[in-house]
Amino acid sequence: MNETICALATAPGGALGIIRISGVQSLEILSKIFSKDLTSALPNTIHYGHIFSSTAPAGSPSDPEVLDEVLVSVFRAPHSYTGEDSAEISCHGSRYILNKVLELLVMHGCRMAGPGEYTMRAYLNGKMDLTQAEAVADLIASSNAATHSLAISQLRGGISSELSHLREKLLKLTSLLELELDFSDHEDLEFADRTELSILTKEIDKRITTLTLSFESGQAIKQGIPVAIVGKTNVGKSTLLNRLLHEDRAIVSDIHGTTRDTIEDTIDINGITFRFIDTAGIRQTTDEVEQIGINRTYSAIEKARIILWIVDQEPSHEELSKICLYAENKKLIVIRNKIDKSENKPFTLVKIPLIEISAKHGQGVSDLEQAIYLAADIPDTSDGEVIITNARHYDALLRAHQSMTRVLSGLESDLSGDLLSEDLRDVLSVLSEITGAEITPNEILGNIFTHFCVGK
Amino acid sequence: MNETICALATAPGGALGIIRISGVQSLEILSKIFSKDLTSALPNTIHYGHIFSSTAPAGSPSDPEVLDEVLVSVFRAPHSYTGEDSAEISCHGSRYILNKVLELLVMHGCRMAGPGEYTMRAYLNGKMDLTQAEAVADLIASSNAATHSLAISQLRGGISSELSHLREKLLKLTSLLELELDFSDHEDLEFADRTELSILTKEIDKRITTLTLSFESGQAIKQGIPVAIVGKTNVGKSTLLNRLLHEDRAIVSDIHGTTRDTIEDTIDINGITFRFIDTAGIRQTTDEVEQIGINRTYSAIEKARIILWIVDQEPSHEELSKICLYAENKKLIVIRNKIDKSENKPFTLVKIPLIEISAKHGQGVSDLEQAIYLAADIPDTSDGEVIITNARHYDALLRAHQSMTRVLSGLESDLSGDLLSEDLRDVLSVLSEITGAEITPNEILGNIFTHFCVGK
Repeated sequence: MNETICALATAPGGALGIIRISGVQSLEILSKIFSKDLTSALPNTIHYGHIFSSTAPAGSPSDPEVLDEVLVSVFRAPHSYTGEDSAEISCHGSRYILNKVLELLVMHGCRMAGPGEYTMRAYLNGKMDLTQAEAVADLIASSNAATHSLAISQLRGGISSELSHLREKLLKLTSLLELELDFSDHEDLEFADRTELSILTKEIDKRITTLTLSFESGQAIKQGIPVAIVGKTNVGKSTLLNRLLHEDRAIVSDIHGTTRDTIEDTIDINGITFRFIDTAGIRQTTDEVEQIGINRTYSAIEKARIILWIVDQEPSHEELSKICLYAENKKLIVIRNKIDKSENKPFTLVKIPLIEISAKHGQGVSDLEQAIYLAADIPDTSDGEVIITNARHYDALLRAHQSMTRVLSGLESDLSGDLLSEDLRDVLSVLSEITGAEITPNEILGNIFTHFCVGK
Repeated sequence: MNETICALATAPGGALGIIRISGVQSLEILSKIFSKDLTSALPNTIHYGHIFSSTAPAGSPSDPEVLDEVLVSVFRAPHSYTGEDSAEISCHGSRYILNKVLELLVMHGCRMAGPGEYTMRAYLNGKMDLTQAEAVADLIASSNAATHSLAISQLRGGISSELSHLREKLLKLTSLLELELDFSDHEDLEFADRTELSILTKEIDKRITTLTLSFESGQAIKQGIPVAIVGKTNVGKSTLLNRLLHEDRAIVSDIHGTTRDTIEDTIDINGITFRFIDTAGIRQTTDEVEQIGINRTYSAIEKARIILWIVDQEPSHEELSKICLYAENKKLIVIRNKIDKSENKPFTLVKIPLIEISAKHGQGVSDLEQAIYLAADIPDTSDGEVIITNARHYDALLRAHQSMTRVLSGLESDLSGDLLSEDLRDVLSVLSEITGAEITPNEILGNIFTHFCVGK
């Protein structure tokens, strides 16, 4: 923490490249290679000048070699991202220049920052808690409205405030129990009404359980919700897939100048990514939905959360019950395609959503998209609903739940207050672990921040 | 020029992404989506706040949705890169966020900037001349000390001041001639001594020619200097190449955290890139230097500026004269490899540099690198030598030279002053074309700036 660190904070290859410096010596070191003395620069100010590649001091007669014309932004502790004195150098985006500036900074006393080291310092300096620090990495990685919304709510303290709420309730519970211990010579004294305790414990555990259950949605949002399109040949599976993919791509290309990774077989509906699982196996090896259960394709369908079953005429009872068998614990949407062809007669289904479309001409496709979105059953985060997306949090919450279960059964079996309070202290400590409110071992910090990119 | 433009100025994929806005409405538009009113923000200040993705005004009761926590840098006309009011938004580097911010800016009145549009505005607002604007693109693309040095010297006005020097001399020449025209009724009056004129003209033309000739070096520096390694099999060609490449890579990897494109068969010596031409053909089809002239390999050697001929024993006179034939108009370096083996006897050569090395153990390799660097014969730019790297400048200078040649022959054939002055005016206009001092047609501007990246 005493060292001043530097790193490239932008991806190489743009018009601009930003180099970040943070630490007590930031402005002192930077002043050695910059055309102005920044050691007394005001906070939140921008300075135009030159970076010199030779060590000749600025203003000396031996004209030092100019490496770049840059803008330097100056930040002062504690009002900076890391909470330390820091600076950002906005250079021309040449790799040569950026490497040279980093070399110069290292030569004058900076150390190259490790992954996530700026954010780790922000955490260690009390600028954010661990869940917020983790949200920074998620925010940078966010690629659609849903992942973005989860990350920004976590960054803004969504999980922290939920957990501090739980902690408060738990502390109340614990202190009631521990008060009894102080008066342990009065054997019969029970400050904490066991029935009330039990209700409160159940309430807290229910909330913890809800949070752990949200992890599945969180994972689905992060990784894209797997969807399988199945159906006999020639019912229009590819046409539908192309139509779904094409419409999305057209929207994306409206903003030019911002390249985007090639997306293959994923679409965003209302900001949620849906990932179409390759069910090519079905198309190649069979043309009958009855043969759907063959091993190769079974595993593809197994992975799906949503199954789109395309038909162009009313399915038989046998077909329906087979598909329902495979779609157990999944969402099934039946799609009647080719509604533009009069020879295909409409039909109705009981209890299974039926969407009528023409994949070729586009009718009904937006209804289908909404049906897919609803089938994903993603909790609405806009009203403050907290969704767990981080495996570390999930793991801690599972442990909290186990301890809460012990507390509950302890209450039922009239366990003594000191043993109950021990389990409650465990839960408190596990919840603190998530936000990093208690001292976090270096090893765990290392694990968290190595997944960051360098420069953040 | 009345429009306010926006673009992503950094490559996507980093920890940070910078969006640039420029134009009269920059701060007004930005204030609509930012948590603070920036319309009266002081120049060169940095503002922390939120970008809102809903259009609800900041501070309104209906809590608007936060898209990102950002830093905004504010610049005021004329003290900005473009010379206009402008701002830079430093966002988290998520493509989703960056696209959304651009969408919001466009929604509120910005237009997506075209390639190089910021720099074009800087030129049109008189912040830099055309050669400096072109240098910006070269600086961003610069990948080693030599290309960087050329670009930065051009950015800092190297070519401009050279050309303004030439223009001054030309104007003196022209005004002397044109003074005669004003007194044209006095037939014998010659203000301009023809001998003096001729000397001055030759001097100017010599400088123009030197500049045009520097274009070859400029191109070689930009594209890397082609080097062919030739020699019989088993003399150590591959070992030498690997050693040259390996040593360079080891230096590069000292600075971690800054990725670099895979370089293949190029090395940097003293900041100049040398590109090794694939002479695999020689290795495959012949094992005798006598057969060097076969068509396939001839063209490879033809492209080289430097030929490294590796031998492990004294070459015969016949071999020597053959290689000298192929190396005509190129630099030839003879390398005696395997000096560690006592059975290979030393020898001397006349007029051809001979370097003794052990590619296997590394002796003599740094001497060889220095010999390669010297053979490249790159003019030293550190003492202000101007090198032309831009085809547009080269083309203009060639035309200036043609006009100067006409002036010279006109002077020799006693052409009248008005015709001479016409040619001189041509030269003046061509030189203005390079710096853009006179009005530059939109078409030419378009050509120049389309080669820029978006965001600069």
